Amino acid sequence: MTKIIVDAMGADAGVEMVADALTKARRTRDFEAVIVGPEDALGARFREDPKVEILNTTEYISNDEAPAFAIRRKKEASIVKGLRLLNESGDVLVTAGSTGALLAGGYLITKRIAGMERLCLAAMVPRGDGGVLMADAGATMDTSPEVLLQFGELLSNYAEAALKKVNPRVGLLNIGAESEKGDKRAVKTHELLRESSLNFVGNVEARDILTAPVDVIITDGFAGNIALKTLEGTARYFRSIVKQVLTTSARTKLGALLIQSELKNALQPLDYRAHGGAPLLGARKALYKAHGNSNAETFALAIHEALDFAESGVVERLSALSETSKEQA
Amino acid sequence: MTKIIVDAMGADAGVEMVADALTKARRTRDFEAVIVGPEDALGARFREDPKVEILNTTEYISNDEAPAFAIRRKKEASIVKGLRLLNESGDVLVTAGSTGALLAGGYLITKRIAGMERLCLAAMVPRGDGGVLMADAGATMDTSPEVLLQFGELLSNYAEAALKKVNPRVGLLNIGAESEKGDKRAVKTHELLRESSLNFVGNVEARDILTAPVDVIITDGFAGNIALKTLEGTARYFRSIVKQVLTTSARTKLGALLIQSELKNALQPLDYRAHGGAPLLGARKALYKAHGNSNAETFALAIHEALDFAESGVVERLSALSETSKEQA
Repeated sequence: MTKIIVDAMGADAGVEMVADALTKARRTRDFEAVIVGPEDALGARFREDPKVEILNTTEYISNDEAPAFAIRRKKEASIVKGLRLLNESGDVLVTAGSTGALLAGGYLITKRIAGMERLCLAAMVPRGDGGVLMADAGATMDTSPEVLLQFGELLSNYAEAALKKVNPRVGLLNIGAESEKGDKRAVKTHELLRESSLNFVGNVEARDILTAPVDVIITDGFAGNIALKTLEGTARYFRSIVKQVLTTSARTKLGALLIQSELKNALQPLDYRAHGGAPLLGARKALYKAHGNSNAETFALAIHEALDFAESGVVERLSALSETSKEQA
Repeated sequence: MTKIIVDAMGADAGVEMVADALTKARRTRDFEAVIVGPEDALGARFREDPKVEILNTTEYISNDEAPAFAIRRKKEASIVKGLRLLNESGDVLVTAGSTGALLAGGYLITKRIAGMERLCLAAMVPRGDGGVLMADAGATMDTSPEVLLQFGELLSNYAEAALKKVNPRVGLLNIGAESEKGDKRAVKTHELLRESSLNFVGNVEARDILTAPVDVIITDGFAGNIALKTLEGTARYFRSIVKQVLTTSARTKLGALLIQSELKNALQPLDYRAHGGAPLLGARKALYKAHGNSNAETFALAIHEALDFAESGVVERLSALSETSKEQA
């Protein structure tokens, strides 16, 4: 049975929320879990559930700490204890704590699959059709075209195995549609992707992220983060303007009453909370990052997505790929 | 009197639109103009206006041509004839034609101000407060931190002289607020900006482009283009969803009637047509890029903005700065 390690610490909403999420996630799916956090707060909650163990700790790594330093020094931090247990006996770890700590832990504790130069944080961009996977989302920068090609392989395999996309369509985030467009890195990456065995469908301009017919979008973490946060900021700004308009006067308030349920439904698929989190790819075990501001509902979703990741066998598949390419080399 | 060279060719809407725009622009402001385009189509239009000359040509450079090659070869192209005339006797040139051709013409015909390594295309991001200038917008990539510092000087001077901003606040587009965030280029650029005499206020995260209290935002052209096009695409997507909601049923159509004028007013400042175009900075003359899909109203606005650019003396100011830094070196 799949065994998930759940980091109970580091979420904005605290340990209770994570405990609620685990309880909720257990209701509709069968799996084993080890929750890493304060025995005090968690003990009573899971006494009745034989498939949930508690790994006691009260320390954690915050967003303000230098991640690599903290991972090396804070042996009692929940993420460190969780990742060590993952190496020994777990299938996947999920955390809503510091992204930097998960990344550093991925390099230093979980370790990379042989041949993988960098780890890759994917983000699920919410859109009407269920979303597009974009990576790197801001964890890994200063990448070479060769690294971006590896990201293409990571994402394509993840989309196929964990998200059940058939022959995933891979796009490259770029400033124009033509192959010669972009900076030096983008031009070279386009060439490598075109020559690869991936289902590369070409460049994706940033204005088409929400509509382009692709399953995954490859990018360096700098531009990826800029795109994701511009999306988030623009969406937030638009929502605030519409909200303001709808409360301007008695007349617009009446108008609001007439459209609000349709508007809410139409905007729902664009909410990033439609997905619980995002995989960190390239490590020897499945690592899953839930939103820092998760609530019990979205964290429960993240637990299920993390289980999908583990059960898809994508880590084994990527390790086998890496073995093959070593033999060929 | 300020003399503007107006490229009549290359706009999506054609020569007639540009002629209409020039007529409109002349109504509320006094200036001399040379319009470069087919005498046939333009002659009758400006026979009565002693301050408008026509420079006849029927050739132009399209978006599909390799710009540097076309600039060198097509001596009769409107942008080539316009830029040559600008060198001889003009103050500023405005075009709605190929951005690549304007950029190549800037390097090859107008030439750079001594010491300016690259040219910099600024974009005015529309927002409630009148807009923020972001550059480079996608023309200049693979920039070094030193080039980005020069962009900071170009933009800051332009914002002060042409846009009348007092002590313009300069931000750096980055993936986090802290000085150590970003890729290698961003970290080094942050350091150079902090040590410079510019009014550098720190990093601007992409989610805050529409709200950050800055006058200009510095970025490499790759990330700048990604940010601008993500903004554009997200705004377009949101508009389409709201429009769809408002026409779903008889009830939402009634709701639409009640809110439509307020909604239109609220969204107006976010329309990129609130500005006519964007300066290309770093050349020995003022160069101004109008939107390719300009209509007569926005192109007339672009003509006035281009005149502001020329009359602000920013080119002379940047040339003097460059002389000073040469003497100091």
